[in-house]
Amino acid sequence: MGPRPSGQNGDVLGADQENPVVVLGAARSWDLLAGLEFGRLAVSVGDQPEIFPINFLAHDGVVLFRTAQLSKLVSLTINRYVALETDGFIADATWSVIMKRTAGSLQREIDIEALTRLPLRSWIPTIKYIFIEITPEQITGSRFARGPEPWR
Amino acid sequence: MGPRPSGQNGDVLGADQENPVVVLGAARSWDLLAGLEFGRLAVSVGDQPEIFPINFLAHDGVVLFRTAQLSKLVSLTINRYVALETDGFIADATWSVIMKRTAGSLQREIDIEALTRLPLRSWIPTIKYIFIEITPEQITGSRFARGPEPWR
Repeated sequence: MGPRPSGQNGDVLGADQENPVVVLGAARSWDLLAGLEFGRLAVSVGDQPEIFPINFLAHDGVVLFRTAQLSKLVSLTINRYVALETDGFIADATWSVIMKRTAGSLQREIDIEALTRLPLRSWIPTIKYIFIEITPEQITGSRFARGPEPWR
Repeated sequence: MGPRPSGQNGDVLGADQENPVVVLGAARSWDLLAGLEFGRLAVSVGDQPEIFPINFLAHDGVVLFRTAQLSKLVSLTINRYVALETDGFIADATWSVIMKRTAGSLQREIDIEALTRLPLRSWIPTIKYIFIEITPEQITGSRFARGPEPWR
């Protein structure tokens, strides 16, 4: 079933109504994630979820971000399992990519000199002195058919 | 310090560089959240975070969404503490609102007949037969000054 004109009552542009969610491969998921710089980091502390919006940079197979936010740092120190989500849309579909690191040390001292040459921008002009690196152990993506409603 | 023209090297539109993150009150945070219908739900299972993109509806002081996704339902059954994040931008600032429910039953049978009359749309034409309600116990928002880079 190919693309169809939009219409009422659930017609979906460019999607198969019987299979509206398409699972994306790891490489495609990584490419989508790497094309953005804003996402949401989830951490679990005391079995309660925390979410933080972050600016990140996907570089050389890892995700980097900087932070000076105490609550974020404390959460990451207590529990280094994280999930990073980012999403966007292409044509008539929404996509969402979720990257997880499920074990190991999240925060390590790396070459700050090299990192500061990367285009890891923060939108917020605070001093972000701590670099954090996430090595993906699992990355999954989904592509959702969308109805005619606008994204926002 | 008021709005200033955009420029290079960290100049921020309409923001105070010495106070670039503004905490929003609960009412303002709720209004921002209620103006959108797409967010990310974080759940903690076995001390590991899970994130799911969701379509929601803020209605009458609660957040409603529907799901038929097994992994989401299982996660919610195991641990009903959730955090919901949504974000957007207004003029020269990015905002992010995080709503938490920190105790109690998340999923309850409510008046399906009444709910189906609400404009709780899903972008995905699957059968979403389970309604889930989140009663906010904590809602926090932040407004971040942004640099001249585009949002996406």
